[in-house]
Amino acid sequence: MSSNDSNPGFDRRTLLAALAATPALPGIVLPISTPAQAAEGSDPLPSWNDGAAKKAILDFVRVTTDPASKDFVPLAERIAEFDQDGTLWVEHPIYTQVTYCLEHVPDLVKAKPELKDREPFKAVLSGNGEALAQLSLRDIFEIVLATQSGMDVEAFREDVRHWLAEAKHPRWHRPYTDLIYQPMTEVLNFFRANGYRNFIATGGSGGFVSEYSEKVYGIPPQQVAGTEQAIKFGYDKDKKPILTQEPKLVLDNMGAGKIQNFWLIYGCRPNAAFGNSSSDDQQMLEYVKAGGGARLSVAVLHDDAVREYAYGPAQGLPNTAVGTFSQEMYDMAKEQGWIVVSMKDDWKRIFAFQ
Amino acid sequence: MSSNDSNPGFDRRTLLAALAATPALPGIVLPISTPAQAAEGSDPLPSWNDGAAKKAILDFVRVTTDPASKDFVPLAERIAEFDQDGTLWVEHPIYTQVTYCLEHVPDLVKAKPELKDREPFKAVLSGNGEALAQLSLRDIFEIVLATQSGMDVEAFREDVRHWLAEAKHPRWHRPYTDLIYQPMTEVLNFFRANGYRNFIATGGSGGFVSEYSEKVYGIPPQQVAGTEQAIKFGYDKDKKPILTQEPKLVLDNMGAGKIQNFWLIYGCRPNAAFGNSSSDDQQMLEYVKAGGGARLSVAVLHDDAVREYAYGPAQGLPNTAVGTFSQEMYDMAKEQGWIVVSMKDDWKRIFAFQ
Repeated sequence: MSSNDSNPGFDRRTLLAALAATPALPGIVLPISTPAQAAEGSDPLPSWNDGAAKKAILDFVRVTTDPASKDFVPLAERIAEFDQDGTLWVEHPIYTQVTYCLEHVPDLVKAKPELKDREPFKAVLSGNGEALAQLSLRDIFEIVLATQSGMDVEAFREDVRHWLAEAKHPRWHRPYTDLIYQPMTEVLNFFRANGYRNFIATGGSGGFVSEYSEKVYGIPPQQVAGTEQAIKFGYDKDKKPILTQEPKLVLDNMGAGKIQNFWLIYGCRPNAAFGNSSSDDQQMLEYVKAGGGARLSVAVLHDDAVREYAYGPAQGLPNTAVGTFSQEMYDMAKEQGWIVVSMKDDWKRIFAFQ
Repeated sequence: MSSNDSNPGFDRRTLLAALAATPALPGIVLPISTPAQAAEGSDPLPSWNDGAAKKAILDFVRVTTDPASKDFVPLAERIAEFDQDGTLWVEHPIYTQVTYCLEHVPDLVKAKPELKDREPFKAVLSGNGEALAQLSLRDIFEIVLATQSGMDVEAFREDVRHWLAEAKHPRWHRPYTDLIYQPMTEVLNFFRANGYRNFIATGGSGGFVSEYSEKVYGIPPQQVAGTEQAIKFGYDKDKKPILTQEPKLVLDNMGAGKIQNFWLIYGCRPNAAFGNSSSDDQQMLEYVKAGGGARLSVAVLHDDAVREYAYGPAQGLPNTAVGTFSQEMYDMAKEQGWIVVSMKDDWKRIFAFQ
């Protein structure tokens, strides 16, 4: 099922170059000059500059794990929830999973030629960056459901594994799994070392993220909750029971869906939450912060056009195809006492490879 | 919201006595004479009689945890899935959660008097055991959704906690949480001690089971997957964000739903599964057994009318309102090499209090 095997004529670089060149999907390539910092003594967050954000994270973990603190949280109840795209790894110029699905459209059209002249598939096949940049969320959902359906759940994961081993980000020319934010890796490790169980709540498909979550984030598939399509039990030609993915949305993590589905699946209010997008992290951050005792809500602001990207209305920048930080969410963060992380000011470095 | 506080005129005993007296819901009360057995040396399953079932469980754990075995499973991948009703605790004369919901019908009708003359609510209010025994699964779903909706998710859990502290099973006159099968507690502990993560996949509501799962089974809410109703984000009168339960089914664990939803939520095929009902465990047990390497599928047969209950077509007994073991599932178990546990022959004792 790898698009690379079956579609030699389909050029990933053309697609990504087109995406990166469109004004609504900035892919500014600039020299990366920030040197990697070595861990400083016993600092659990060495890639963070000293400041209010780093202090708030350290303080939160201290007061919730010190048995003498009034905000102590028993070990079994320590839960932290992390958005993925734009919070744990790069989401520009477009979500990694969407790139995966776009690259699978030629395969899909080969199997179902009637889709060739139908939007949004036609726009994808054209490779026209402007047309691609116009795709709505609804179009993207349609593409995701169409390209990920009919497949055995285990075969899907294998296909994702093969794709991730070959695909490269158009700006850094590295595997997507290299583009994890090093400061967030440190947060995951710091929380874990203090007895927290880390969960991912993503707008993407849980099955996609589950393929690498353990290896890359130390988070097992059982702790990854995504926007989920239906799974159907049946039998293959040898009468062996199988599960296949169906083109039907069952759990939608957009908007308030992320925190609704977190409760539905995991049955608790997290103690801490990290996100970055008004479109699907805001209610999660609100709900977490509104709980009793010490609660930590952290919103990552993409304000570093040099080392990563800068986007979103909170900085007077235009909206983009990926999650943005609205002025409303910015005001809410200040009013409710969330922590806003400036990638530019709070992070010494962005990636482990730097 | 406790029915005991607000409905002094509603008599739990009348309802349960009526349920227990109906022919389709046998509630045979007989003297319990099996003495409790002390743990024998280092036997991890002291409440199990020696036999094929006990041996299969011990062998499975040994070969999947011995690094020298060809069937070794790495620590991070050891997953066991357990049905609850009829597998971990008593499901007769009717599922505990359904009893909870039935007892909340008077509260509901007080709030919505228009339901008083409508079925299935009318039948519940009548307290007529025969009418209650006729309730279909659809009726029961309607009652569950109606009684559990509109409530804040945290308030619901608190109400369940209060109810469980007072409610008693009509046969043993003990809290429902005392009616856990001691041999299965030993299995949970044995698996956990060998690095397995235990999960509950229940036809009931995850929110109901999550209230006591950690305390009673050592399984945290994050590892409980149920039939789930929608959760809705909103604000209370003080503009505080809240989550409420809605009368809409989102994940249905009936039939093949249990294994479909297990993959959807937890993204893996369990190594071992334990169930007892043809109506919602069969496909789970099939799918688990069909995986590669060593796989354990265990079906508990309720064949002990003296110490617990005996029911189901596999023994030529009638169907009941709760999960039953069909002849088809019995044949499938034999053909595919599942383990069928006879409660009568394989279990030395049933409950910890004996």
